[in-house]
Amino acid sequence: MEICQFLFNKGAILVLKFAEMDSKTLQEYRAGLLKRYEDFKSQSLKYNMSRGVPCKEQLDLSMGMLDITDYKSDDSDFRNYGGIDGIPEAKQLFAELLEAELDEVIVGGNSALNMIYDTIARAMSFGVLGSEVAWGKLPKVKILCPSPGYDRHFAICELFGIEMIVVDMKSDGPDIDAVEKIVSEDETVKGILCVPKYSNPDGITYSDEVVDRLARMKTKAKDFRIFWDNAYAVHHLYSKGDTLKNILKACKDAGNEDRVFVYFSTSKISFPGAGVAAMATSKANASMIKKQLSIQMIGPDKMNQFRHVRFFKNKDNIEAHMRKHAEIIEPKFSAVLDILSAELGGKEIAWWKKPNGGYFISLNTLDGCAKEVVTMTAEAGVLITPAGATFPYGKDPRDRNIRIAPSFPSVNELKNAIEIFCVCIQIASINKLLLKK
Amino acid sequence: MEICQFLFNKGAILVLKFAEMDSKTLQEYRAGLLKRYEDFKSQSLKYNMSRGVPCKEQLDLSMGMLDITDYKSDDSDFRNYGGIDGIPEAKQLFAELLEAELDEVIVGGNSALNMIYDTIARAMSFGVLGSEVAWGKLPKVKILCPSPGYDRHFAICELFGIEMIVVDMKSDGPDIDAVEKIVSEDETVKGILCVPKYSNPDGITYSDEVVDRLARMKTKAKDFRIFWDNAYAVHHLYSKGDTLKNILKACKDAGNEDRVFVYFSTSKISFPGAGVAAMATSKANASMIKKQLSIQMIGPDKMNQFRHVRFFKNKDNIEAHMRKHAEIIEPKFSAVLDILSAELGGKEIAWWKKPNGGYFISLNTLDGCAKEVVTMTAEAGVLITPAGATFPYGKDPRDRNIRIAPSFPSVNELKNAIEIFCVCIQIASINKLLLKK
Repeated sequence: MEICQFLFNKGAILVLKFAEMDSKTLQEYRAGLLKRYEDFKSQSLKYNMSRGVPCKEQLDLSMGMLDITDYKSDDSDFRNYGGIDGIPEAKQLFAELLEAELDEVIVGGNSALNMIYDTIARAMSFGVLGSEVAWGKLPKVKILCPSPGYDRHFAICELFGIEMIVVDMKSDGPDIDAVEKIVSEDETVKGILCVPKYSNPDGITYSDEVVDRLARMKTKAKDFRIFWDNAYAVHHLYSKGDTLKNILKACKDAGNEDRVFVYFSTSKISFPGAGVAAMATSKANASMIKKQLSIQMIGPDKMNQFRHVRFFKNKDNIEAHMRKHAEIIEPKFSAVLDILSAELGGKEIAWWKKPNGGYFISLNTLDGCAKEVVTMTAEAGVLITPAGATFPYGKDPRDRNIRIAPSFPSVNELKNAIEIFCVCIQIASINKLLLKK
Repeated sequence: MEICQFLFNKGAILVLKFAEMDSKTLQEYRAGLLKRYEDFKSQSLKYNMSRGVPCKEQLDLSMGMLDITDYKSDDSDFRNYGGIDGIPEAKQLFAELLEAELDEVIVGGNSALNMIYDTIARAMSFGVLGSEVAWGKLPKVKILCPSPGYDRHFAICELFGIEMIVVDMKSDGPDIDAVEKIVSEDETVKGILCVPKYSNPDGITYSDEVVDRLARMKTKAKDFRIFWDNAYAVHHLYSKGDTLKNILKACKDAGNEDRVFVYFSTSKISFPGAGVAAMATSKANASMIKKQLSIQMIGPDKMNQFRHVRFFKNKDNIEAHMRKHAEIIEPKFSAVLDILSAELGGKEIAWWKKPNGGYFISLNTLDGCAKEVVTMTAEAGVLITPAGATFPYGKDPRDRNIRIAPSFPSVNELKNAIEIFCVCIQIASINKLLLKK
């Protein structure tokens, strides 16, 4: 990942760091910004960059899968009852994608999030393989949450009363020293929630060392689990994507094969909500889950699975399909990054990185500015993920992280929206700096 | 519901009651039956009547819904994220079917069973509206199970460690005197599981009085719930179907509007597994559930919901569609009933009823014969629902109830299968009677 430069010359104009400006200059500068802000406000704009939502052109890429008219294989009618862990053809496809064995794979309904919720819900009600007692019967259950992270993961923990322990994200994944220390000491820490590739929101891919240490580390809880939400496994923005070490294999090699649940879905490959989700885990875990699933439901939507399998066929085709997605959204990421650089570069009031994939750009403001920025931006008609959402309990301890989701708006809308956003960041930063002066 | 006659003349031959035959006659009769049984066995037949599965011709009825190419309404693209409780068009359709208000309806994924599991799972983890404590935190939770009943309901209770209390099924629903007594006395009884129309397996429809008394009854548990699995609401076999009183309204009228969760699905209307499920409940319950669902998942498969709405449009069309289903499966029910009458009528070794709808014929053998019958039948290649499955814990106290699911095999296969079944019933009955002589 390329770290953007913040100190640079714009043509011949030297960009000043805001902190080095005097109060009068800042006030004058702010006056200009406020004028721009009011101009935008008067346009009654309505942009939504709050969630990682594919745009229409991306959805159109998969319409071909709806042309299928025959929902039968040689020995199965996928329109009828039968089967709990996915049709064999879908298991084969996801086994290839997840680098797993066929009997390590369960292909389910429409979202990995639902599979993660279900796994945690079952752990709370029944425990996982090797649990002496259902997690929900324990006086306290904790889960490690590398942060900033995915707000929907945090919401699941909060719903179940699971205590979330923040672990800092570093450039190669969660602070693994901290993780190792906590899990080795605290028996009530039962798991860690990871988005290991193009992480939400930072776009960070875990290093091989972090993967290996997660797989290998000693955990005080015998039934510790890694929830590995590989949501962006094939979601590269450029021809050369990041690579992520196979944690299933790493766990096997370390003798901890039951430690990890890997999740994946086609929500941002085919259709969000009408896609297919899959998980991979040890055979023993998969076997236990399949038994529970056979009570939980009658089976997944096999017709939809078959639609996907017929259309995508194999990993190569999915990768080719994802290059088409990248062609659509990469210009949007570029537009955002260009404007961020042009408007904020060198001012030392915001820091961000250029991700190689995924759906987000994560930006840190000066401490204590994020909420103000998001509120101001919303008032000008640009909806951004609420400040704090990227941290457990919605509480960003430094009130600085903001997640930008560039995929949905058009490039022109984005340019407008990000310009407003940058104006708001500058105003909020000056407000903050003036307070200190 | 028409009760079949068991004592009758077959032409000029008076059919003898088995219990009135002497041992020698029974032995001779059995020898003939065993010969027929061995003949069947030698044919290596393979028939499956174990579950209520639609046949190919039924599935073909809904193929038209797959022709839709446009998944957008005026203001929504159903291919994308958004919405947790179903698309407005689907809510409208199911509100009409379930006789509920729009904001009392949640349209979900592919099976009512999964919705029931989810409701119970959430009750165990978080309680329901009005619960002082999550059901799973209580030392004991009990649910009333009218029996014979639906094995998959029982499996959910068993998985969660919920104690199941058997309540007898009468011809107008569960023994409502017993239900009222138990729920008024025992605070740990938190609910009752009902298939109120064309019940699985008996085909019984609850009377208005039973519905009213369920809605009205005083319950010791303040957070008592009726799980109303209206799986066969529109699944009539004949032009005049049974009618079921609207329990949502009955509960409202009785001042207990939060008492009931109504479930429904198109599993046996369109495609099992690729259908749409819905629930209806009080606005307050629905509001609480929607909040939880927004954490549990990203939303249902809206494209599939739209497919269903475009195809079925309204209740009238669904009823017309169900008449086509009935045209296909009614002859199968007739074939079974005819053979049961011809082979077993008047012998006083088996009792059954002719249902007006649903998917099953429920048959009672002499006490202590059901397991033997199902085992013998399986050995001759005819798979029937395991004996005992229609009771909690798989334990039929009188070992006599057998569920027959006639929908899937062809009429010819059915005739063969039921003939074998009847031979097995007669052999097992004679075995039992000879033991007593």
